[in-house]
Amino acid sequence: MKEKIGNGPWIKKIELEITSPSLRDNTADTDRLISGIKKELNAEIMVDFSLVKGVPHTLRKYDYKIDALLFEYRNCWNLIDIFPLQKDADYFGLAMDLGSTTVVLRLVNLISSKTKYETSFNNPQIEIGPDILTRIHFSAQDGGLEKLQAILIKRLNREILELAEKVGINTDSIIGMSVAGNTTMTHFFLGLDPYWICREPYIPVVNRPGIIKSSELGIAINKNAPVLVFPNAGSYFGGDLIAGIMASGMMHESEIAFLVDVGTNAEVVIGNCDWLMACAGAAGPALEGGVASMGMMAGPGVIDKVVIDPNTLEIILSTIENLPPIGICGSGLIDLVAQLFLAGMIDLRGKFVLEKCEKKFIDIEGIKHLIVVEPEDSGTEKYLTLSQPDIDALMRSKAAMYTILTTVSNTVGISLNEITKFYVAGTFGLYIKPQSAITIGMIPDLPLERYVPLGNTSLEGACMALMSFKAREEIYKIRDQITYLELNVNQEFMNLFSAAKFIPHTDSALFPSVKEWRQNTCNRSRVQGLTVQR
Amino acid sequence: MKEKIGNGPWIKKIELEITSPSLRDNTADTDRLISGIKKELNAEIMVDFSLVKGVPHTLRKYDYKIDALLFEYRNCWNLIDIFPLQKDADYFGLAMDLGSTTVVLRLVNLISSKTKYETSFNNPQIEIGPDILTRIHFSAQDGGLEKLQAILIKRLNREILELAEKVGINTDSIIGMSVAGNTTMTHFFLGLDPYWICREPYIPVVNRPGIIKSSELGIAINKNAPVLVFPNAGSYFGGDLIAGIMASGMMHESEIAFLVDVGTNAEVVIGNCDWLMACAGAAGPALEGGVASMGMMAGPGVIDKVVIDPNTLEIILSTIENLPPIGICGSGLIDLVAQLFLAGMIDLRGKFVLEKCEKKFIDIEGIKHLIVVEPEDSGTEKYLTLSQPDIDALMRSKAAMYTILTTVSNTVGISLNEITKFYVAGTFGLYIKPQSAITIGMIPDLPLERYVPLGNTSLEGACMALMSFKAREEIYKIRDQITYLELNVNQEFMNLFSAAKFIPHTDSALFPSVKEWRQNTCNRSRVQGLTVQR
Repeated sequence: MKEKIGNGPWIKKIELEITSPSLRDNTADTDRLISGIKKELNAEIMVDFSLVKGVPHTLRKYDYKIDALLFEYRNCWNLIDIFPLQKDADYFGLAMDLGSTTVVLRLVNLISSKTKYETSFNNPQIEIGPDILTRIHFSAQDGGLEKLQAILIKRLNREILELAEKVGINTDSIIGMSVAGNTTMTHFFLGLDPYWICREPYIPVVNRPGIIKSSELGIAINKNAPVLVFPNAGSYFGGDLIAGIMASGMMHESEIAFLVDVGTNAEVVIGNCDWLMACAGAAGPALEGGVASMGMMAGPGVIDKVVIDPNTLEIILSTIENLPPIGICGSGLIDLVAQLFLAGMIDLRGKFVLEKCEKKFIDIEGIKHLIVVEPEDSGTEKYLTLSQPDIDALMRSKAAMYTILTTVSNTVGISLNEITKFYVAGTFGLYIKPQSAITIGMIPDLPLERYVPLGNTSLEGACMALMSFKAREEIYKIRDQITYLELNVNQEFMNLFSAAKFIPHTDSALFPSVKEWRQNTCNRSRVQGLTVQR
Repeated sequence: MKEKIGNGPWIKKIELEITSPSLRDNTADTDRLISGIKKELNAEIMVDFSLVKGVPHTLRKYDYKIDALLFEYRNCWNLIDIFPLQKDADYFGLAMDLGSTTVVLRLVNLISSKTKYETSFNNPQIEIGPDILTRIHFSAQDGGLEKLQAILIKRLNREILELAEKVGINTDSIIGMSVAGNTTMTHFFLGLDPYWICREPYIPVVNRPGIIKSSELGIAINKNAPVLVFPNAGSYFGGDLIAGIMASGMMHESEIAFLVDVGTNAEVVIGNCDWLMACAGAAGPALEGGVASMGMMAGPGVIDKVVIDPNTLEIILSTIENLPPIGICGSGLIDLVAQLFLAGMIDLRGKFVLEKCEKKFIDIEGIKHLIVVEPEDSGTEKYLTLSQPDIDALMRSKAAMYTILTTVSNTVGISLNEITKFYVAGTFGLYIKPQSAITIGMIPDLPLERYVPLGNTSLEGACMALMSFKAREEIYKIRDQITYLELNVNQEFMNLFSAAKFIPHTDSALFPSVKEWRQNTCNRSRVQGLTVQR
């Protein structure tokens, strides 16, 4: 039986033709239903009391020929709902990547395992605070936590109703959901107080929320649908990263791999099939587009790639969907700074080289800005510029990132060069050019093919755990396997951080490729080779 | 572990001093609590999502020193509540005998297993209909079922609040409940539609309601308290009788015993440790005090014992609490009719012998009534009388009872004489004089010591199942072991019934003692020997 559970889904449809009651067999309707299911599943069956009331009417209406929908939890199959027997009926599940900025939903057909629809929306909690800390403070106000939860669920429900209408299904046929998000976001989703998350010693309300009935959360899918909420491994290591580890598959390989997810925090995992060490630190703001004056999230018209001609110092851009540029995203910013460095326009401290930049400066509120896009070329009809503070912020972010990677690898006694796979999760991972990130010394100087972009691993992992019993079990194994390295209490960090605040690093021997790229940077063919791609 | 569960209670208090969180141990509060409990119980622990929200605050408030209250269900211990650690704190459970007429509550101390308080109240559904069928019809009306449930729960809650105040406890310290009632009453309690219970083939909504959270039923005890609702073995064999079987202990004996519970229905079980056969039939109305003109439930001033002087035909009565008589209960009525028969005042058909009774008749609305109590001796200041229709009703009831016993014993091929223990459950069993019941041919002519009155076995069984894991398991074993004999479809019944409508029976050889008692009935010492006792 264990084997049967292990290899299959944990949300199932069972087609049943139950014997009708008679004087010879006066078993009650609910018990009759249970024994019918038991014959098929050979397991403990549980029918929630809230469902019992409707069983006699439903069974008679469908003439005891039914589709029974069930989910497995703690060695027991639980009834979700009963529908009339239909050989070709489809039932759906919803996987959710619960980001602090963006929420992504994927509707999957649980019978065929195919994706039916995917959509995303801005987390409505942004209106309360773009950053998590503001939201945590807000949650301490009277009714604050309730409001944070309510606006999220309300927005989610609107999206669910819209998507159900769009694909032509009834929301009752959505019989399961999985949610991967960071620890704080998950707390907001569940209406749990994050008060102790951001205070030493940083304690979440719960590590393993497990499975919760959708109606307990007020989600507009089948009211008995199980909602699998990803576990966390601490206040700063959430279910999104556990999903990411699972989606990367790194815990099945014998070779040691890195997984990096850059969002508001840089979250880093190192390990293999035997062990996993995780670490997270504030490294991301400059990379998320929230800091630089022209920074913004990836989207149409946003600069995602930059090349600078070292002879003419001409800045050649590509934008998403090839629209006139309106801002720059994290990967674009990294490209830009890497190219500025290779072209000699900034030095190894990340400071503008005045004799090279002078002609491209414009003064805004008393601060020199490097013009990246002239108003006539800009989608905003204004200058798009880069200031020294913008670069400084990126320098801190990249230094933090590199320091986290170094700290983690030092802690486990592995040289960064030994890493054979370096997975980069998130939208950021899809857009970033590893060569540029290496150039500025953000990530180690490894052969480029070792960098593997993975896309939205949080959503991917949520989807896997929704559809497979084994994957669902695996998220708890991953959680339990993770050793969490608390950066806040690590003394070595600040020393490493200072050394990493140079381009590429104070110890340039760590980045032999950058020296070579700098020498070759006059090679025009590289610039001509740029293709605008997404 | 199994053994530990088996021998102990299934509702437990665990005293815990949990390690406070630190930077070295950042386990979430809920998971910290779970692992603390796990260390004590070495079992799977579940914390309902509704409790998770409050865990961080509660643990901190009590400085991580707590009493954790838990209940076992499906191999998992579920958290009920957390209280501050108190070595001598008591926690309580409520056992309920859910009768269609009377509801009895017993508050037990779950730590000491002692009874703390007992109380009873009239089932408020009586206002809708004294009999179950009227209530079932009412439940089919719009909002009828909801009303039946609501008035019962409301009345129950009032009683709970009163008893908690009386014994000086908080209702939150009542952390478990068990409910034994007949199948229909249980359906009303749970708000389940009894529509199919009274229609062929007589199918309940559920046989094993299992354990339901008190808040789902709106009961005013701890909101996460488990409510164990006794299973039923069919529409006409309820949890009250399963509780009775357990309380009798008959399923642990190798000798074959009878258990009889006389309420609105006569419910009969025969069997031993290897098998159990059950049967129920409408036999009771005349015995419950609802039919005879002066009939009433046992209570102060109600006639419970009668002796007639065969020479003077003087009727000597005893009443409950020795108050002036106001009516007669079932056991009193059986005594009265038995004595009338022994004194020759009624014949073997149960008809008044005119020459003996003439002087004691009074005419009420054209029907002859035998005066039992003169107005000057009566608590009501009116005549208390017995009419021919009253006797006829009792004759039908007693005939039904005897027929059920015969049918059941015939079905299993056992002679009534072979029965070594004859358990009589219910209040009725406490008051009835077996000799009188034998005299009228209601129960078989066995040596009197074989009759064992058990009192309220429904309450007793509910109490046992509330306090012990083994007893809780046993009710399901009993349920599964019962073979239910459906009287409604048995052809032999009507023939046997006709033969039993005589005093004591058409076949007087079945009742040798009665012949003897009739001959000895002039013995004055027997009459003088009457003591008024309760």
